Amino acid sequence: MGFLITLTSDFGQADGFVGVMKAVIAGIAPNARLVDISHELRPCDIKAGAWVIGNAYRYFPDDTIHMAIVDPGVGSSRRSLLIETEHQYFVGPDNGLFSYVIRAEDKVTCYELNRSEFWLPVISTSFHGRDIFAPVAAHLASGKRPDELGGRIDPNSLVLLPEALVQESNGTLKGSIVYIDRFGNLITNIPIEIAKNAHACKFDQTVIPIGTTYSSVPDGGAVAYGGSHGFVEIAVSHGNAAEFLRADVDDEVVVELKA
Amino acid sequence: MGFLITLTSDFGQADGFVGVMKAVIAGIAPNARLVDISHELRPCDIKAGAWVIGNAYRYFPDDTIHMAIVDPGVGSSRRSLLIETEHQYFVGPDNGLFSYVIRAEDKVTCYELNRSEFWLPVISTSFHGRDIFAPVAAHLASGKRPDELGGRIDPNSLVLLPEALVQESNGTLKGSIVYIDRFGNLITNIPIEIAKNAHACKFDQTVIPIGTTYSSVPDGGAVAYGGSHGFVEIAVSHGNAAEFLRADVDDEVVVELKA
Amino acid sequence: MGFLITLTSDFGQADGFVGVMKAVIAGIAPNARLVDISHELRPCDIKAGAWVIGNAYRYFPDDTIHMAIVDPGVGSSRRSLLIETEHQYFVGPDNGLFSYVIRAEDKVTCYELNRSEFWLPVISTSFHGRDIFAPVAAHLASGKRPDELGGRIDPNSLVLLPEALVQESNGTLKGSIVYIDRFGNLITNIPIEIAKNAHACKFDQTVIPIGTTYSSVPDGGAVAYGGSHGFVEIAVSHGNAAEFLRADVDDEVVVELKA
Repeated sequence: MGFLITLTSDFGQADGFVGVMKAVIAGIAPNARLVDISHELRPCDIKAGAWVIGNAYRYFPDDTIHMAIVDPGVGSSRRSLLIETEHQYFVGPDNGLFSYVIRAEDKVTCYELNRSEFWLPVISTSFHGRDIFAPVAAHLASGKRPDELGGRIDPNSLVLLPEALVQESNGTLKGSIVYIDRFGNLITNIPIEIAKNAHACKFDQTVIPIGTTYSSVPDGGAVAYGGSHGFVEIAVSHGNAAEFLRADVDDEVVVELKA
Repeated sequence: MGFLITLTSDFGQADGFVGVMKAVIAGIAPNARLVDISHELRPCDIKAGAWVIGNAYRYFPDDTIHMAIVDPGVGSSRRSLLIETEHQYFVGPDNGLFSYVIRAEDKVTCYELNRSEFWLPVISTSFHGRDIFAPVAAHLASGKRPDELGGRIDPNSLVLLPEALVQESNGTLKGSIVYIDRFGNLITNIPIEIAKNAHACKFDQTVIPIGTTYSSVPDGGAVAYGGSHGFVEIAVSHGNAAEFLRADVDDEVVVELKA
Repeated sequence: MGFLITLTSDFGQADGFVGVMKAVIAGIAPNARLVDISHELRPCDIKAGAWVIGNAYRYFPDDTIHMAIVDPGVGSSRRSLLIETEHQYFVGPDNGLFSYVIRAEDKVTCYELNRSEFWLPVISTSFHGRDIFAPVAAHLASGKRPDELGGRIDPNSLVLLPEALVQESNGTLKGSIVYIDRFGNLITNIPIEIAKNAHACKFDQTVIPIGTTYSSVPDGGAVAYGGSHGFVEIAVSHGNAAEFLRADVDDEVVVELKA
């Protein structure tokens, strides 16, 4: 049974780009098992990609290799990365896409991909997913060591997205929306643990009751609850909270704790 | 070669939810083979989900395990199910999603999932696909017996969607649209066998000729024919029948038989 | 390790059609490995399907079996094909979908699928992907020879799409847009090799500078460059060239070479 390789991108599923990356992998590592995490990220939305891979990777077994590609800077001087954490591997561009992983993991070893003998023979300027990242992930799955595929670099030199922090003062937690899912649920950066004692949630001028899940409120009502990702979320039962509240990523969310 | 597990949901493919469920399965049953049936069901559309799984499952080999999750009631008191039919297994919420399966299968044994030692250690209130259904499907694929994973319940106690029935009288069949596919084809509940002798089909005020397939009529023309699912369908050649006829699920369709 | 079967279609991913084809394959060739190339082709867009499969197939390993189905003529008299090239196989309708493959490959042997003992027992008039192409691909993956599955036909008798040709005169290359990808990038039929000496690209009245990749120009700017598929492409950095330039497939693109 082969290694597990996951694929995350903004390539969409119409044009065959993902299939081509899988073709390259199949040619090098035919036993690798492939799992798609997402290819429907909004084009160039590194922030969303970072959240998706940063949330998903922790559920995968040890030794999983994650390819993630949202890469508006492809063909420029941005570096190509291989990151080794205590239990898994990450391959993709150095543009902040692995910010959540880097911040969550204690042991991180980073390599700049610079061994072109492990890439496709011809490297395009716009599709490194096919030409560099897929073959590197496949060679890793075939037993190559990370230090054969690239040169060590300082983890502190990696591009990181600004960190969205939660401010706590006077019984109030101020956080922000970090992701909006397909249901329109608003996922914040406020950890459930520090919000357990909440008595209300505020978005803009709207006070949102605290519940346990969507069905805690009547259809069409907004509710804040401890989301499945471990953070406070806001949903509208049988509705779309992002549309209902006209909310967007980075907007502020306030949780008021009981006295 | 491992068991086959299928996945059907309204989770979409952008947010990584499906990848996370596959991660959980891969951790427990690494040899399981995974096939997606649909993740693009309209959010909360149990009726569409029931049709899709109810149509697809019969093509899968014996012993296939079907996970299906359209679950607006997640976190409420709705039960979690494992259904064993003569040849296959079904895992998901007790909300009508398996109505077609239950009605089509003679031998049905039902279990309420209540053995939390086979779930993830922490159960969220909003993502039982990850926390309960994926691990249960994976344990089943790893050789656990259904009665180890849940307690027997009466099949008659399951939530079922109302059954759309066909009325026959005076050489006329009155049925309804049960599903609209991505081409805008209108799939009815009128079985081909009883409609073989049709001479016309009516939708609203429109009389639709009977043909054998899309290309039986000129481009842009509507046609009724024996669909690939075994029921009368209405299509527009090189067009979209749902838009052309302003048709929706549950709308009435009439087939007039030859005298 | 089983054969690799790819799937390309305009079936979308909502209705379960793709899952059903995989079910049929799994029943006949349980060891086959499945890779989706695209199921999000615009309904009935044979031209786009031909480009997608014609671009993707060359990255797959030897012996890969490609099923491709964009099939508005299903159920009519159009033939069902099995094409054997030097290294791979193609299964689908005879409607031009394999035009790029046929034109690119030297050795092509063609068969009309006519051995119904290798199909599903009942053949619908509208879903040959399930009833004919999936079982034939699976039987091929299980070791059947092409000549067991169909009868030889003359490759020159195949339906082909009109070929979009590039005209060269007076230091000017006139080509056209053959595909638009999800980023809105305009992919032309002008090979990079003959355009290496370009000093400008023209679309309609707009002069587009030559660059090496998206990031060669400021955000919002259009750029022409050697695309990853081997042809001149036009993109807008962090934007959508198709929308920006109001461009469509078949529109003319002109490359002016240096004197």
